[in-house]
Amino acid sequence: MSNFGFSRLRLVNPYEPSFREARSAVGASALLAGAQEYKSVAEAVADCALVVGTTSARNRGLQQDLLPLPDAARRIRKQLASGRVALLFGSEKRGLSNRDLNHCHWLLRIPTCEAQPSMNLGQAVALCLYELARTSAKAPGGRKNPAAAACDLERLTLLLFELLTAIGYTAPHSESKAEQDVRRLIRRLALSPQDARTWLGMLRQILWKLRALQSP
Amino acid sequence: MSNFGFSRLRLVNPYEPSFREARSAVGASALLAGAQEYKSVAEAVADCALVVGTTSARNRGLQQDLLPLPDAARRIRKQLASGRVALLFGSEKRGLSNRDLNHCHWLLRIPTCEAQPSMNLGQAVALCLYELARTSAKAPGGRKNPAAAACDLERLTLLLFELLTAIGYTAPHSESKAEQDVRRLIRRLALSPQDARTWLGMLRQILWKLRALQSP
Repeated sequence: MSNFGFSRLRLVNPYEPSFREARSAVGASALLAGAQEYKSVAEAVADCALVVGTTSARNRGLQQDLLPLPDAARRIRKQLASGRVALLFGSEKRGLSNRDLNHCHWLLRIPTCEAQPSMNLGQAVALCLYELARTSAKAPGGRKNPAAAACDLERLTLLLFELLTAIGYTAPHSESKAEQDVRRLIRRLALSPQDARTWLGMLRQILWKLRALQSP
Repeated sequence: MSNFGFSRLRLVNPYEPSFREARSAVGASALLAGAQEYKSVAEAVADCALVVGTTSARNRGLQQDLLPLPDAARRIRKQLASGRVALLFGSEKRGLSNRDLNHCHWLLRIPTCEAQPSMNLGQAVALCLYELARTSAKAPGGRKNPAAAACDLERLTLLLFELLTAIGYTAPHSESKAEQDVRRLIRRLALSPQDARTWLGMLRQILWKLRALQSP
Protein backbone atom coordinates (compact mmCIF):
# COMPACT_ATOMS: atom_id res chain seq x y z
CA MET A 1 0.00 0.00 0.00
CA SER A 2 2.67 2.49 0.95
CA ASN A 3 4.68 1.67 -2.19
CA PHE A 4 1.82 2.99 -4.27
CA GLY A 5 0.57 5.79 -2.06
CA PHE A 6 -2.50 4.22 -0.47
CA SER A 7 -3.08 4.87 3.20
CA ARG A 8 -6.49 3.69 4.40
CA LEU A 9 -6.43 0.07 5.53
CA ARG A 10 -9.70 -1.31 6.91
CA LEU A 11 -10.02 -4.76 8.39
CA VAL A 12 -13.18 -6.77 8.97
CA ASN A 13 -12.80 -9.09 11.96
CA PRO A 14 -9.05 -9.63 11.57
CA TYR A 15 -7.57 -12.76 13.11
CA GLU A 16 -6.30 -11.05 16.26
CA PRO A 17 -3.14 -13.06 17.02
CA SER A 18 -1.80 -12.50 13.50
CA PHE A 19 -2.92 -8.90 13.35
CA ARG A 20 -1.35 -8.00 16.69
CA GLU A 21 1.94 -9.56 15.65
CA ALA A 22 1.98 -8.00 12.20
CA ARG A 23 5.15 -6.05 11.52
CA SER A 24 5.20 -3.47 8.82
CA ALA A 25 7.98 -2.88 6.35
CA VAL A 26 10.30 0.03 7.06
CA GLY A 27 8.44 3.28 6.58
CA ALA A 28 4.95 1.80 6.63
CA SER A 29 4.33 1.47 10.36
CA ALA A 30 2.03 4.51 10.45
CA LEU A 31 -0.20 2.83 7.89
CA LEU A 32 -0.49 -0.34 9.93
CA ALA A 33 -0.99 1.57 13.17
CA GLY A 34 -3.77 3.56 11.54
CA ALA A 35 -5.66 0.48 10.28
CA GLN A 36 -9.28 0.52 11.35
CA GLU A 37 -11.23 -2.54 12.48
CA TYR A 38 -14.87 -3.26 11.70
CA LYS A 39 -17.39 -5.93 12.64
CA SER A 40 -18.93 -6.28 9.20
CA VAL A 41 -18.28 -5.52 5.55
CA ALA A 42 -21.32 -3.21 5.58
CA GLU A 43 -19.77 -1.04 8.31
CA ALA A 44 -16.34 -1.06 6.69
CA VAL A 45 -17.61 0.30 3.37
CA ALA A 46 -20.39 2.52 4.72
CA ASP A 47 -18.89 5.80 3.49
CA CYS A 48 -17.79 4.49 0.09
CA ALA A 49 -19.48 5.47 -3.15
CA LEU A 50 -18.11 2.44 -4.97
CA VAL A 51 -17.25 -1.01 -3.62
CA VAL A 52 -15.24 -3.27 -5.92
CA GLY A 53 -14.73 -6.92 -5.00
CA THR A 54 -11.79 -9.04 -6.05
CA THR A 55 -12.23 -12.65 -7.15
CA SER A 56 -10.49 -15.39 -9.07
CA ALA A 57 -13.98 -16.14 -10.45
CA ARG A 58 -13.79 -19.90 -10.12
CA ASN A 59 -16.90 -21.95 -9.43
CA ARG A 60 -19.17 -19.06 -8.67
CA GLY A 61 -22.41 -18.10 -10.30
CA LEU A 62 -21.42 -14.46 -10.42
CA GLN A 63 -24.25 -12.06 -11.05
CA GLN A 64 -22.20 -8.90 -11.21
CA ASP A 65 -20.06 -7.32 -13.88
CA LEU A 66 -16.59 -8.84 -13.85
CA LEU A 67 -13.77 -6.71 -15.29
CA PRO A 68 -10.15 -7.60 -15.89
CA LEU A 69 -7.84 -5.52 -13.70
CA PRO A 70 -6.61 -3.03 -16.34
CA ASP A 71 -10.18 -2.08 -17.33
CA ALA A 72 -11.28 -2.11 -13.69
CA ALA A 73 -8.49 0.30 -12.75
CA ARG A 74 -9.55 2.77 -15.43
CA ARG A 75 -13.17 2.58 -14.24
CA ILE A 76 -12.14 3.04 -10.61
CA ARG A 77 -9.97 6.03 -11.47
CA LYS A 78 -12.90 7.77 -13.09
CA GLN A 79 -15.09 7.12 -10.05
CA LEU A 80 -12.45 8.37 -7.60
CA ALA A 81 -13.24 11.91 -8.66
CA SER A 82 -16.76 11.55 -7.29
CA GLY A 83 -16.37 9.63 -4.05
CA ARG A 84 -14.44 7.20 -1.88
CA VAL A 85 -13.79 3.76 -3.38
CA ALA A 86 -13.34 0.52 -1.44
CA LEU A 87 -11.30 -2.33 -2.88
CA LEU A 88 -12.46 -5.48 -1.09
CA PHE A 89 -10.17 -8.50 -0.63
CA GLY A 90 -11.06 -11.82 0.97
CA SER A 91 -8.96 -13.98 3.24
CA GLU A 92 -5.88 -15.78 1.93
CA LYS A 93 -7.58 -19.16 2.11
CA ARG A 94 -11.12 -18.62 0.93
CA GLY A 95 -11.33 -15.25 -0.74
CA LEU A 96 -14.58 -13.33 -0.51
CA SER A 97 -17.78 -15.20 0.27
CA ASN A 98 -20.86 -14.76 -1.91
CA ARG A 99 -22.28 -12.83 1.03
CA ASP A 100 -19.31 -10.44 0.92
CA LEU A 101 -19.57 -10.10 -2.85
CA ASN A 102 -23.16 -8.92 -2.46
CA HIS A 103 -21.86 -5.66 -1.00
CA CYS A 104 -19.94 -4.95 -4.20
CA HIS A 105 -21.11 -2.87 -7.12
CA TRP A 106 -18.99 -4.95 -9.47
CA LEU A 107 -16.01 -7.27 -9.40
CA LEU A 108 -12.51 -7.38 -10.79
CA ARG A 109 -10.17 -10.23 -11.54
CA ILE A 110 -6.48 -10.27 -12.21
CA PRO A 111 -5.86 -11.93 -15.57
CA THR A 112 -3.93 -15.13 -14.80
CA CYS A 113 -3.24 -18.50 -16.38
CA GLU A 114 -6.36 -20.62 -16.38
CA ALA A 115 -4.50 -23.42 -14.67
CA GLN A 116 -3.51 -21.18 -11.73
CA PRO A 117 -6.10 -18.47 -11.10
CA SER A 118 -5.73 -18.27 -7.32
CA MET A 119 -3.25 -15.68 -6.10
CA ASN A 120 -1.35 -14.90 -2.95
CA LEU A 121 -3.22 -12.13 -1.12
CA GLY A 122 -0.28 -9.74 -0.71
CA GLN A 123 0.63 -10.10 -4.38
CA ALA A 124 -2.95 -9.56 -5.50
CA VAL A 125 -3.17 -6.36 -3.45
CA ALA A 126 0.15 -5.13 -4.83
CA LEU A 127 -0.99 -5.75 -8.42
CA CYS A 128 -4.28 -3.92 -7.94
CA LEU A 129 -2.67 -0.88 -6.31
CA TYR A 130 0.15 -0.81 -8.87
CA GLU A 131 -2.44 -0.77 -11.64
CA LEU A 132 -4.47 1.94 -9.90
CA ALA A 133 -1.40 4.11 -9.33
CA ARG A 134 -0.26 3.56 -12.89
CA THR A 135 -3.45 4.76 -14.51
CA SER A 136 -3.52 7.81 -12.30
CA ALA A 137 -0.97 9.54 -14.45
CA LYS A 138 -3.34 9.59 -17.41
CA ALA A 139 -6.55 10.03 -15.50
CA PRO A 140 -8.84 12.52 -17.16
CA GLY A 141 -9.70 15.67 -15.31
CA GLY A 142 -13.39 15.51 -16.11
CA ARG A 143 -16.05 15.59 -13.44
CA LYS A 144 -18.42 12.70 -12.97
CA ASN A 145 -21.73 12.54 -11.23
CA PRO A 146 -21.20 11.34 -7.68
CA ALA A 147 -22.40 7.93 -6.54
CA ALA A 148 -24.56 7.09 -3.54
CA ALA A 149 -22.73 6.09 -0.35
CA ALA A 150 -22.80 2.43 0.67
CA CYS A 151 -24.72 3.25 3.86
CA ASP A 152 -27.58 4.71 1.79
CA LEU A 153 -27.58 1.66 -0.46
CA GLU A 154 -27.75 -0.53 2.63
CA ARG A 155 -30.68 1.53 4.00
CA LEU A 156 -32.41 1.13 0.66
CA THR A 157 -31.70 -2.61 0.70
CA LEU A 158 -33.27 -3.09 4.13
CA LEU A 159 -36.25 -0.90 3.29
CA LEU A 160 -37.01 -2.72 0.02
CA PHE A 161 -36.61 -6.06 1.76
CA GLU A 162 -39.03 -4.96 4.50
CA LEU A 163 -41.50 -3.88 1.85
CA LEU A 164 -41.21 -7.14 -0.09
CA THR A 165 -41.67 -9.12 3.11
CA ALA A 166 -44.74 -7.04 3.99
CA ILE A 167 -46.44 -7.88 0.69
CA GLY A 168 -45.49 -11.55 0.82
CA TYR A 169 -43.13 -11.32 -2.16
CA THR A 170 -40.45 -13.31 -0.36
CA ALA A 171 -41.13 -16.81 0.89
CA PRO A 172 -40.66 -16.91 4.69
CA HIS A 173 -38.25 -19.86 4.53
CA SER A 174 -35.88 -18.16 2.11
CA GLU A 175 -35.61 -14.74 3.74
CA SER A 176 -31.85 -14.78 4.08
CA LYS A 177 -31.34 -15.58 0.40
CA ALA A 178 -33.96 -13.01 -0.60
CA GLU A 179 -32.18 -10.32 1.42
CA GLN A 180 -28.92 -11.13 -0.37
CA ASP A 181 -30.69 -10.99 -3.74
CA VAL A 182 -32.10 -7.56 -2.88
CA ARG A 183 -28.67 -6.38 -1.71
CA ARG A 184 -27.12 -7.22 -5.08
CA LEU A 185 -30.09 -5.84 -6.98
CA ILE A 186 -29.69 -2.44 -5.28
CA ARG A 187 -25.90 -2.34 -5.88
CA ARG A 188 -26.45 -2.88 -9.60
CA LEU A 189 -28.52 0.29 -9.93
CA ALA A 190 -25.63 2.78 -10.14
CA LEU A 191 -27.57 5.29 -8.04
CA SER A 192 -26.52 8.87 -7.44
CA PRO A 193 -26.88 10.26 -3.89
CA GLN A 194 -29.88 12.27 -5.07
CA ASP A 195 -31.61 9.29 -6.69
CA ALA A 196 -30.88 7.11 -3.67
CA ARG A 197 -32.72 9.68 -1.54
CA THR A 198 -35.60 9.74 -4.02
CA TRP A 199 -35.94 5.95 -3.91
CA LEU A 200 -35.70 5.95 -0.13
CA GLY A 201 -38.49 8.51 0.02
CA MET A 202 -40.69 6.58 -2.39
CA LEU A 203 -40.22 3.23 -0.69
CA ARG A 204 -40.80 4.74 2.76
CA GLN A 205 -44.07 6.23 1.64
CA ILE A 206 -45.20 2.99 -0.02
CA LEU A 207 -44.38 1.07 3.14
CA TRP A 208 -46.12 3.65 5.32
CA LYS A 209 -49.23 3.46 3.14
CA LEU A 210 -49.25 -0.34 3.24
CA ARG A 211 -48.90 -0.40 7.02
CA ALA A 212 -51.69 2.15 7.36
CA LEU A 213 -54.00 0.03 5.20
CA GLN A 214 -53.05 -3.23 6.90
CA SER A 215 -53.69 -2.07 10.48
CA PRO A 216 -57.05 -0.38 10.70
CA MET B 1 5.30 -17.26 -11.48
CA SER B 2 2.72 -19.94 -12.13
CA ASN B 3 -0.09 -17.36 -11.98
CA PHE B 4 1.37 -15.71 -15.05
CA GLY B 5 2.71 -18.71 -16.92
CA PHE B 6 6.42 -18.52 -16.12
CA SER B 7 8.20 -21.76 -15.33
CA ARG B 8 11.98 -21.37 -15.16
CA LEU B 9 13.17 -20.43 -11.70
CA ARG B 10 16.93 -20.12 -11.24
CA LEU B 11 18.57 -19.46 -7.90
CA VAL B 12 22.06 -18.17 -7.22
CA ASN B 13 23.41 -19.50 -3.92
CA PRO B 14 20.03 -19.75 -2.18
CA TYR B 15 20.02 -19.72 1.61
CA GLU B 16 19.70 -23.48 2.01
CA PRO B 17 17.59 -23.77 5.18
CA SER B 18 14.91 -21.45 3.78
CA PHE B 19 15.05 -22.96 0.32
CA ARG B 20 14.71 -26.53 1.57
CA GLU B 21 11.71 -25.60 3.70
CA ALA B 22 10.00 -23.58 0.99
CA ARG B 23 6.48 -24.79 0.30
CA SER B 24 4.82 -23.89 -2.94
CA ALA B 25 1.23 -22.82 -3.40
CA VAL B 26 -1.22 -25.44 -4.62
CA GLY B 27 -0.46 -26.33 -8.22
CA ALA B 28 3.01 -24.79 -8.31
CA SER B 29 5.07 -27.56 -6.72
CA ALA B 30 6.49 -28.71 -10.06
CA LEU B 31 7.88 -25.22 -10.60
CA LEU B 32 9.65 -25.20 -7.24
CA ALA B 33 10.90 -28.77 -7.66
CA GLY B 34 12.33 -27.82 -11.05
CA ALA B 35 14.23 -24.78 -9.79
CA GLN B 36 17.88 -24.84 -10.76
CA GLU B 37 20.76 -23.73 -8.53
CA TYR B 38 23.86 -21.88 -9.65
CA LYS B 39 27.05 -20.67 -8.01
CA SER B 40 27.14 -17.29 -9.73
CA VAL B 41 24.97 -14.84 -11.62
CA ALA B 42 27.19 -15.36 -14.67
CA GLU B 43 26.41 -19.08 -14.77
CA ALA B 44 22.72 -18.54 -14.11
CA VAL B 45 22.25 -16.22 -17.07
CA ALA B 46 24.77 -17.86 -19.40
CA ASP B 47 22.22 -18.95 -22.04
CA CYS B 48 20.21 -15.72 -22.01
CA ALA B 49 20.21 -13.21 -24.86
CA LEU B 50 19.05 -10.42 -22.58
CA VAL B 51 19.54 -9.89 -18.84
CA VAL B 52 17.39 -7.26 -17.16
CA GLY B 53 18.11 -6.25 -13.58
CA THR B 54 15.54 -4.93 -11.12
CA THR B 55 16.31 -2.08 -8.77
CA SER B 56 14.64 0.53 -6.63
CA ALA B 57 17.42 2.81 -7.91
CA ARG B 58 18.26 4.47 -4.60
CA ASN B 59 21.76 5.69 -3.88
CA ARG B 60 23.40 4.03 -6.80
CA GLY B 61 25.51 5.56 -9.50
CA LEU B 62 23.72 3.62 -12.20
CA GLN B 63 25.50 3.49 -15.51
CA GLN B 64 22.87 1.55 -17.38
CA ASP B 65 19.58 2.44 -18.95
CA LEU B 66 16.84 2.45 -16.35
CA LEU B 67 13.30 1.91 -17.64
CA PRO B 68 10.02 2.08 -15.73
CA LEU B 69 8.32 -1.33 -15.67
CA PRO B 70 5.65 -0.72 -18.34
CA ASP B 71 8.24 0.41 -20.90
CA ALA B 72 10.61 -2.33 -19.84
CA ALA B 73 7.94 -4.99 -20.35
CA ARG B 74 7.29 -3.82 -23.90
CA ARG B 75 11.00 -3.94 -24.69
CA ILE B 76 11.37 -7.40 -23.13
CA ARG B 77 8.41 -8.79 -25.07
CA LYS B 78 9.99 -7.70 -28.33
CA GLN B 79 13.26 -9.35 -27.40
CA LEU B 80 11.59 -12.61 -26.34
CA ALA B 81 11.06 -13.46 -29.99
CA SER B 82 14.78 -13.61 -30.54
CA GLY B 83 16.16 -15.32 -27.47
CA ARG B 84 15.86 -16.24 -23.80
CA VAL B 85 15.49 -13.35 -21.35
CA ALA B 86 16.56 -13.35 -17.68
CA LEU B 87 14.84 -11.14 -15.15
CA LEU B 88 17.23 -10.72 -12.23
CA PHE B 89 16.06 -10.02 -8.67
CA GLY B 90 18.20 -9.41 -5.61
CA SER B 91 17.68 -10.64 -2.08
CA GLU B 92 14.84 -9.33 0.06
CA LYS B 93 17.20 -7.32 2.26
CA ARG B 94 19.79 -5.85 -0.02
CA GLY B 95 18.57 -6.16 -3.58
CA LEU B 96 21.13 -6.62 -6.33
CA SER B 97 24.71 -5.55 -5.71
CA ASN B 98 26.54 -3.33 -8.17
CA ARG B 99 28.47 -6.44 -9.09
CA ASP B 100 25.22 -8.25 -9.95
CA LEU B 101 23.93 -5.27 -11.88
CA ASN B 102 26.96 -5.42 -14.10
CA HIS B 103 25.62 -8.61 -15.62
CA CYS B 104 22.57 -6.77 -16.84
CA HIS B 105 22.02 -5.21 -20.26
CA TRP B 106 19.77 -2.65 -18.72
CA LEU B 107 17.63 -2.15 -15.60
CA LEU B 108 14.00 -1.72 -14.75
CA ARG B 109 12.29 -0.17 -11.79
CA ILE B 110 8.72 -0.42 -10.62
CA PRO B 111 7.23 3.08 -10.38
CA THR B 112 6.52 3.68 -6.68
CA CYS B 113 6.05 6.59 -4.31
CA GLU B 114 9.33 8.38 -3.77
CA ALA B 115 8.95 8.02 -0.02
CA GLN B 116 8.69 4.23 -0.26
CA PRO B 117 10.66 2.84 -3.23
CA SER B 118 11.71 -0.47 -1.68
CA MET B 119 9.39 -3.38 -2.37
CA ASN B 120 8.73 -6.80 -0.96
CA LEU B 121 10.49 -9.32 -3.22
CA GLY B 122 7.47 -11.56 -3.88
CA GLN B 123 5.33 -8.55 -4.76
CA ALA B 124 8.00 -7.10 -7.05
CA VAL B 125 8.27 -10.41 -8.92
CA ALA B 126 4.48 -10.66 -9.23
CA LEU B 127 4.29 -7.13 -10.66
CA CYS B 128 7.00 -7.73 -13.24
CA LEU B 129 5.50 -11.01 -14.45
CA TYR B 130 1.98 -9.58 -14.50
CA GLU B 131 3.22 -6.74 -16.67
CA LEU B 132 5.04 -9.13 -18.98
CA ALA B 133 2.03 -11.44 -19.31
CA ARG B 134 -0.44 -8.68 -19.88
CA THR B 135 -1.44 -8.30 -23.50
CA SER B 136 -2.12 -4.65 -23.98
CA ALA B 137 -5.54 -4.25 -25.58
CA LYS B 138 -7.10 -7.69 -25.26
CA ALA B 139 -7.10 -8.72 -21.63
CA PRO B 140 -9.24 -11.87 -21.29
CA GLY B 141 -11.80 -12.65 -18.65
CA GLY B 142 -14.09 -9.65 -18.96
CA ARG B 143 -17.83 -9.91 -19.02
CA LYS B 144 -20.40 -7.16 -19.11
CA ASN B 145 -24.10 -7.55 -18.67
CA PRO B 146 -26.37 -6.42 -21.52
CA ALA B 147 -28.79 -3.56 -20.94
CA ALA B 148 -32.56 -3.78 -20.62
CA ALA B 149 -34.65 -2.97 -23.69
CA ALA B 150 -36.31 0.43 -23.84
CA CYS B 151 -39.77 -1.14 -23.87
CA ASP B 152 -39.13 -2.80 -20.51
CA LEU B 153 -37.86 0.49 -19.07
CA GLU B 154 -41.03 2.19 -20.28
CA ARG B 155 -43.22 -0.53 -18.72
CA LEU B 156 -41.32 -0.04 -15.50
CA THR B 157 -41.73 3.73 -15.72
CA LEU B 158 -45.50 3.53 -16.12
CA LEU B 159 -45.86 0.94 -13.38
CA LEU B 160 -43.83 2.96 -10.87
CA PHE B 161 -45.73 6.09 -11.78
CA GLU B 162 -49.05 4.28 -11.26
CA LEU B 163 -47.83 3.06 -7.89
CA LEU B 164 -46.67 6.51 -6.80
CA THR B 165 -49.98 8.00 -7.85
CA ALA B 166 -51.84 5.31 -5.91
CA ILE B 167 -50.06 6.19 -2.67
CA GLY B 168 -50.38 9.94 -3.21
CA TYR B 169 -46.65 10.49 -3.68
CA THR B 170 -47.20 12.73 -6.70
CA ALA B 171 -49.23 15.89 -6.47
CA PRO B 172 -52.28 15.66 -8.80
CA HIS B 173 -51.56 18.96 -10.56
CA SER B 174 -48.01 18.00 -11.47
CA GLU B 175 -48.59 14.53 -12.87
CA SER B 176 -47.02 15.18 -16.22
CA LYS B 177 -43.81 16.50 -14.68
CA ALA B 178 -43.77 13.66 -12.16
CA GLU B 179 -44.07 11.09 -14.92
CA GLN B 180 -41.08 12.64 -16.68
CA ASP B 181 -39.11 12.58 -13.44
CA VAL B 182 -39.87 8.88 -13.00
CA ARG B 183 -38.92 8.19 -16.63
CA ARG B 184 -35.50 9.75 -16.16
CA LEU B 185 -35.08 8.09 -12.76
CA ILE B 186 -35.64 4.65 -14.32
CA ARG B 187 -33.26 5.35 -17.21
CA ARG B 188 -30.49 6.26 -14.80
CA LEU B 189 -30.59 2.80 -13.22
CA ALA B 190 -28.43 0.95 -15.79
CA LEU B 191 -30.71 -2.09 -15.55
CA SER B 192 -30.00 -5.44 -17.16
CA PRO B 193 -32.93 -7.27 -18.87
CA GLN B 194 -33.06 -9.69 -15.94
CA ASP B 195 -33.13 -6.94 -13.30
CA ALA B 196 -35.76 -5.02 -15.24
CA ARG B 197 -38.00 -8.11 -15.06
CA THR B 198 -37.32 -8.47 -11.33
CA TRP B 199 -38.29 -4.86 -10.66
CA LEU B 200 -41.41 -5.22 -12.83
CA GLY B 201 -42.44 -8.27 -10.81
CA MET B 202 -41.85 -6.55 -7.47
CA LEU B 203 -43.69 -3.36 -8.39
CA ARG B 204 -46.62 -5.32 -9.84
CA GLN B 205 -47.02 -7.27 -6.65
CA ILE B 206 -46.78 -4.12 -4.49
CA LEU B 207 -49.43 -2.43 -6.61
CA TRP B 208 -51.68 -5.50 -6.53
CA LYS B 209 -51.39 -5.66 -2.75
CA LEU B 210 -52.21 -1.97 -2.38
CA ARG B 211 -55.25 -2.25 -4.63
CA ALA B 212 -56.46 -5.29 -2.70
CA LEU B 213 -56.14 -3.42 0.60
CA GLN B 214 -57.72 -0.23 -0.74
CA SER B 215 -60.88 -1.82 -2.18
CA PRO B 216 -62.36 -4.28 0.27
